[in-house]
Amino acid sequence: MSTAVKVSEEIHAIEGGITAPRGFLAAGVHAGIKRQKKDIAIVYSERPCSAAGMFTTNRVKAAPLLVTKERLNGGPIRAIVVNSGNANACTGERGLEDARAMASLCARALGVGEAEVLVASTGVIGVPLPMEKIAAGIDQAARALSVEGAHDAALGILTTDTRTKEVAVQCDVDGVTFRIGGMAKGSGMIHPNMATMLAFLSTDAAVAPEFLDEQLRAAVDVTFNMITVDGDTSTNDMVLILANGAEERARIEPGTPLAAAFSRALRLVCTELAKMIAADGEGATKLIEVRVRGARTERDARLVVKAVSGSSLVKTAVYGEDANWGRILCATGYSGAEFDPERTTVYLGDVKVFEHGVPVAFDEAEAKRALSGSSVTITVDLGEGEAEATGWTCDLTYDYVKINASYRT
Amino acid sequence: MSTAVKVSEEIHAIEGGITAPRGFLAAGVHAGIKRQKKDIAIVYSERPCSAAGMFTTNRVKAAPLLVTKERLNGGPIRAIVVNSGNANACTGERGLEDARAMASLCARALGVGEAEVLVASTGVIGVPLPMEKIAAGIDQAARALSVEGAHDAALGILTTDTRTKEVAVQCDVDGVTFRIGGMAKGSGMIHPNMATMLAFLSTDAAVAPEFLDEQLRAAVDVTFNMITVDGDTSTNDMVLILANGAEERARIEPGTPLAAAFSRALRLVCTELAKMIAADGEGATKLIEVRVRGARTERDARLVVKAVSGSSLVKTAVYGEDANWGRILCATGYSGAEFDPERTTVYLGDVKVFEHGVPVAFDEAEAKRALSGSSVTITVDLGEGEAEATGWTCDLTYDYVKINASYRT
Repeated sequence: MSTAVKVSEEIHAIEGGITAPRGFLAAGVHAGIKRQKKDIAIVYSERPCSAAGMFTTNRVKAAPLLVTKERLNGGPIRAIVVNSGNANACTGERGLEDARAMASLCARALGVGEAEVLVASTGVIGVPLPMEKIAAGIDQAARALSVEGAHDAALGILTTDTRTKEVAVQCDVDGVTFRIGGMAKGSGMIHPNMATMLAFLSTDAAVAPEFLDEQLRAAVDVTFNMITVDGDTSTNDMVLILANGAEERARIEPGTPLAAAFSRALRLVCTELAKMIAADGEGATKLIEVRVRGARTERDARLVVKAVSGSSLVKTAVYGEDANWGRILCATGYSGAEFDPERTTVYLGDVKVFEHGVPVAFDEAEAKRALSGSSVTITVDLGEGEAEATGWTCDLTYDYVKINASYRT
Repeated sequence: MSTAVKVSEEIHAIEGGITAPRGFLAAGVHAGIKRQKKDIAIVYSERPCSAAGMFTTNRVKAAPLLVTKERLNGGPIRAIVVNSGNANACTGERGLEDARAMASLCARALGVGEAEVLVASTGVIGVPLPMEKIAAGIDQAARALSVEGAHDAALGILTTDTRTKEVAVQCDVDGVTFRIGGMAKGSGMIHPNMATMLAFLSTDAAVAPEFLDEQLRAAVDVTFNMITVDGDTSTNDMVLILANGAEERARIEPGTPLAAAFSRALRLVCTELAKMIAADGEGATKLIEVRVRGARTERDARLVVKAVSGSSLVKTAVYGEDANWGRILCATGYSGAEFDPERTTVYLGDVKVFEHGVPVAFDEAEAKRALSGSSVTITVDLGEGEAEATGWTCDLTYDYVKINASYRT
């Protein structure tokens, strides 16, 4: 795990990513869609799973999303097949056929029902999938499935990411144990409401599909939907969770202590993955955590988080380690939230830089220090009420421009 | 004039900027707020003017905005005083006093009433104005006022702009002549709804304040409010127009042919200034015009213009001259507009790249050519209806990051 998970007495960080929960296998292989890197991943459960998913709000939805959505109808799921390097988006009827074919090929290779396989893609838009390469890659990945394959799978879903995003936790509540694992990819087109972001989660708890869906929505709302890299919401975003019930005693029923622990653990896993995505935003050198408190409503708090974390000017100032709090206040001003600058306080790290409508005479060296690490916290206290929200973004750098000026060519 | 004004038979481009209309003088001087460049400008009318203004929608409003707004009460106006290098924003009670003092100093130097002077500032946020320097600069500028001072004034309002923005046109309708001139500054924090953008307009037509206000709103709505550089709406944006009636026969009454000509001329001046601001966006190498047609409603057309022109991914792709139409379609998808990708057509320049839900097999060299000039047009035809909208932005480059990573320090 690349960042520290804050554990409680019942939740412990463990090794293993997506295959940390019992009964899950995974693999990632190079099928030749990308030049050299792994580009096909399969996650497989030895037992039938409940599944839930959340999808991009973009009106242009990639073909694999449409196929996966129609399969999340409460029936059992056994596997997810993912390719990177090609988004299979804006590919018309052929794209839909290809997405279905991907799932069929995977189902055949695994010996499961065709409707039991979910499918996802990420990469360049508007180019048909190279189905021969994909077919060969799926066969290869199916043969390579193992508990040790989690990291390969995490590699296989990456695009411009510089590193894998993997987390796993174990929960021990009243003598019952279950695990939640996950892997994700960013790293451009990342914006609240599911950017080009794929996240796959697994658990060996037993959770009914409706409750799983409810839990997933609640967790995504305060984690993946609170990150932004560049404000662009992609056509391919997807978060999926599979629950295989391999830990038979871990039946998660609404309203129980077990459900509360499951909820906390799921949120923790999603938070860590979301932060890893923001920290690995295209060209990023710093993770920025934006905390808003003292808002009149949660909606206001979220509006300010989104405006500050979405501001190119704030993001470039953090890159330059420039304590330009004026841009933070300016973004707060156009966020649409109800507030009065006269009651607002702004902090960079622990350094108070603005209070009651005017700047504080802060120590520039101290403020610079607050901006100099690989992780920076900006806090805006609106002084209006009790509501709060937190979100994550990264700095905006030369490399963001470099990566995106010639992605396609 | 740095870009070509499209003239009609009655509207002609003329030299002279803000002092092209009769009875206006201007000056720009170096007062020492900025290290070397001019930083104080005055625009003065020999006769009392009607005036109208539009202001930032940011909830954090700089002190000079508050002062100028309260003076636009229908009473006569004689001058505008502007400083660059310091925004006088987030400066509390002292900021308000300073803004009023700036106007008073200017009124005294010009021998006009204090309430007859409007005031504007642009630059860094949260630092009190250096009032001694400003006082000396105002005296110097007042002494330097001349018809030839328009370019100096246009220089005096710049911040990170690389060039002045000046336009003037003359209208000849049924033997009546009037002129409209203008100057503006960008170039970061530029976003629909008045970004860090100042624009000052003058006319020697006679226009009642209410009608002037109406005309200004209509023109700004389709020009300055349709440009974006980085999505940040500043605390200091302001567009002001002064009408001095020096051309006594040019009385602009609602519903007349003269009013129609005034309306066209004002929109033309605002369009040219808006395009100059977008083209000179921080770090920009290209002006991008985004045209949306075939929308169901004008609101939808504007939503798509704003999403496409606000997309960092579209802007970096244009910088890289990469025909990445997928990002255009993706931005259209998250714009919030009603549309169906199956009916959408996308053009880069004249090259059709996407039609009916799938990419067109276009000539890459031709598409690259469409992106290679200093001015690029993107057209999205939604195929849904008759509504359309146009907006402007610039490409996102290394230099944007460079300029903004250390603006304050």
